[in-house]
Amino acid sequence: MKLYEKLADEIGEAVRRGVFAAGERIPSVRQASQQHGVSIKTVLHAYALLEGRGLIETRPQSGYFVRERAVPKAVHGGRTAKPATPAAEVDVSRLVLSTLRSIRAHDAVPFGSPYPDPTLFPWRRINQYANAIARRHSSWNLIDDLPPGNPELIRQIARRYAENGVPVDPSEIIVTLGATEAINLSLQAVAKPGDTVVVESPTYYAMLHAIERLGMRAIAVATHPAEGIDLDVLAQIIGKQKIAACMVMPNFQNPLGFQMPDERKRRLVELLSEHDIPVIENDVYQELYFGETRPTTLKNFDMKGLVLHCGSFSKSLTASYRIGWAMPGRYRAQVEKLKFLNTLTTPSVPQVAVADYLRQDGYDRHLRHVRRFYRQQARLMSAMVQRFFPPDTRISTPQGGYVLWVELSPRVDSMRLYRAALAQGITVGPGYMFSMRNDFRHFIRLNYSYPWTAQSEAALKTLGGLVATMA
Amino acid sequence: MKLYEKLADEIGEAVRRGVFAAGERIPSVRQASQQHGVSIKTVLHAYALLEGRGLIETRPQSGYFVRERAVPKAVHGGRTAKPATPAAEVDVSRLVLSTLRSIRAHDAVPFGSPYPDPTLFPWRRINQYANAIARRHSSWNLIDDLPPGNPELIRQIARRYAENGVPVDPSEIIVTLGATEAINLSLQAVAKPGDTVVVESPTYYAMLHAIERLGMRAIAVATHPAEGIDLDVLAQIIGKQKIAACMVMPNFQNPLGFQMPDERKRRLVELLSEHDIPVIENDVYQELYFGETRPTTLKNFDMKGLVLHCGSFSKSLTASYRIGWAMPGRYRAQVEKLKFLNTLTTPSVPQVAVADYLRQDGYDRHLRHVRRFYRQQARLMSAMVQRFFPPDTRISTPQGGYVLWVELSPRVDSMRLYRAALAQGITVGPGYMFSMRNDFRHFIRLNYSYPWTAQSEAALKTLGGLVATMA
Repeated sequence: MKLYEKLADEIGEAVRRGVFAAGERIPSVRQASQQHGVSIKTVLHAYALLEGRGLIETRPQSGYFVRERAVPKAVHGGRTAKPATPAAEVDVSRLVLSTLRSIRAHDAVPFGSPYPDPTLFPWRRINQYANAIARRHSSWNLIDDLPPGNPELIRQIARRYAENGVPVDPSEIIVTLGATEAINLSLQAVAKPGDTVVVESPTYYAMLHAIERLGMRAIAVATHPAEGIDLDVLAQIIGKQKIAACMVMPNFQNPLGFQMPDERKRRLVELLSEHDIPVIENDVYQELYFGETRPTTLKNFDMKGLVLHCGSFSKSLTASYRIGWAMPGRYRAQVEKLKFLNTLTTPSVPQVAVADYLRQDGYDRHLRHVRRFYRQQARLMSAMVQRFFPPDTRISTPQGGYVLWVELSPRVDSMRLYRAALAQGITVGPGYMFSMRNDFRHFIRLNYSYPWTAQSEAALKTLGGLVATMA
Repeated sequence: MKLYEKLADEIGEAVRRGVFAAGERIPSVRQASQQHGVSIKTVLHAYALLEGRGLIETRPQSGYFVRERAVPKAVHGGRTAKPATPAAEVDVSRLVLSTLRSIRAHDAVPFGSPYPDPTLFPWRRINQYANAIARRHSSWNLIDDLPPGNPELIRQIARRYAENGVPVDPSEIIVTLGATEAINLSLQAVAKPGDTVVVESPTYYAMLHAIERLGMRAIAVATHPAEGIDLDVLAQIIGKQKIAACMVMPNFQNPLGFQMPDERKRRLVELLSEHDIPVIENDVYQELYFGETRPTTLKNFDMKGLVLHCGSFSKSLTASYRIGWAMPGRYRAQVEKLKFLNTLTTPSVPQVAVADYLRQDGYDRHLRHVRRFYRQQARLMSAMVQRFFPPDTRISTPQGGYVLWVELSPRVDSMRLYRAALAQGITVGPGYMFSMRNDFRHFIRLNYSYPWTAQSEAALKTLGGLVATMA
């Protein structure tokens, strides 16, 4: 390979990896010559090659820039459906559990994982706190950390909300076993078997699980990939039938990745308040924003205590400890009681270890690092899907979190794709998981939290090939 | 105080503390003279005094013995009641939670605690394993320990059952967040809202909580303080109405403390099997037996996979980690799915730390120590209640575990006693917690897991005084 070809490949790779983003200027010919220790002529030759490959372009008087790719078409949002009771046999949870199991094979490429890459977590620091607890105390007393939970942990959670402008009363917080339990308890506190609950379309499957577990009915409301749940449709539904609760994910919704604009958050809370309908807000990705500032929550707009806010450290700090919480507004007493009935208490050591970490360590520094990394990864994964997938592929524009939502040709069945990919050691999240009625059979969810490697690139290429074959 | 009086007090105290048990021989006059460095005459004088106090007796040709106390009258068992739906307002869980909260005050004497003294746990050893995990692994993966749970922990649990003759298939075991979750999931797997469930009378309140949480109906069946649930009454009930499940605690039932005889365990399983009624066996005290050998479980007699066996390490190893499990027989798939829906997964580090402890450390040695201690404590607490409580008091004869069930004069209301005792810094477990219809309003449960101190002795004396006043 000639020297200018090698240089072109190197820079091309950097572009693909998102080191230079679309529209960004790349080093001038002189700079590149110095950086790479090659002649001006070699750089000019390499840049010409990259231009020929369509990766960069020259702009008069300005230099060389990474070409703006064709703006990817946005994914379609979901549609509004009639109420459905999750059937016992074709249940979402079975599919989700089997999907999760398939990720167990550690050598599979984990595009299908719902969890963030655990190597990003400051597990060593947190374990140090857990160890220190052992030295500090002679024994552990279950009683101390009974619901609502360890007082210091509750104080630390409350502090973070307060610092970010979310109105919070520490006595409202109840520690749970992850957000999963918080969501389950919140739903059980406000609705009973047979009741109808509004969810987003697509919706995060944990919402469907909670509904399924409690024998309730669900109605899915069209949800825009950038703006969130359709408020006009929601208003119509509320006007027509009795709705026991609404379950939404206003920040970095899984799978769509949108951040619901503040004005729409406010309108959602007001609309539901008018009808005294409680809303369960799943806000587990709140800390993983790509913007300049932390997003608001529905709590910011809640005047009547109708927002049951659910949070967790499992996406942002550690998934091993399963520390989540509920801030259930006026339903506090019910949720606390249900927590007690459901699992008695959340284990002590994890509660105290997380509290100590929050008090003493660099959680914000850790989060800044993670946010930066995920933002880059989102860009990288989007670029890679455009590169390897058929041109009719549509993708989401995540504003936080670590998943990309991909709309394939309607001819592609995501379960068939899932099985074909698994056979090649690659997992994907089939769209089937995100509704009760298979509204998203040609969609998949891809996890981009893991560092990009030659293996993952090859896997995504393979996946693109499979999609092309099926389409 | 004269020397012989001092010696008499010392030996009398040893008798009261259970150092010398009823019917046991105390040191000969010569031995006592040597041990205490006093004259033969002083010992003779002291022993005469103790004889006069009714604490010891001489037996011809044999020496001095601790007097057999009058055999305490056994507590009454419960009665069979008509089915009852736990009412939302007068719920058992609220009372239980407030009772537990009252134990939070660390300076209160914890007779009301349902938990074993945590200082008995080998917490230092277990924490060492947790620390070692941190060194061994670079990160923790939620996926590995998804339901059914960490494979090594499951293997260790299965091994213990196998070694004790309980037929077990490791693939049947599902790790849960304590027995609380195991019981909840088991009940939800076999019965639905509105169904009728049979419980013991008195029954452990966690059973009532599970029924309350799921909106089911309960029917309490008379339970004998030594033999367990009345099988004839149970047979009649089954013959007359549809029963969705039966919930029992055949080993060291809380609060009665009995070990159901093997023959009755067999008959119970057979009776329910004939009608295909699943039985939820809460066996959390199994390791805390006072006899020579580990008791059998209902699983030993289960031919049809109808026993949903629930266990936990919270009573015998560590309450901080909240590691429990279910062995749900033919309902395995349902329970696993419900575990996934309820709390997704049990935290990893606690699972692995307990597995490592079980594999490498002296769990059996620890258990032998705990069993010996609780056996002594049971004797001591029984003797103390006889000493300080009115003569019409009846007590249970625990065959394992760490609670004593005390029947007071019918004129004593245990809630009034509870509040009066709490005002004096003493907690008790009011009998109200053990039924839905206040069948045990003049009963209390006392925890004897904590080492006996001057403070606890004074507290029990105070308690006896309060009872006498109320009677």
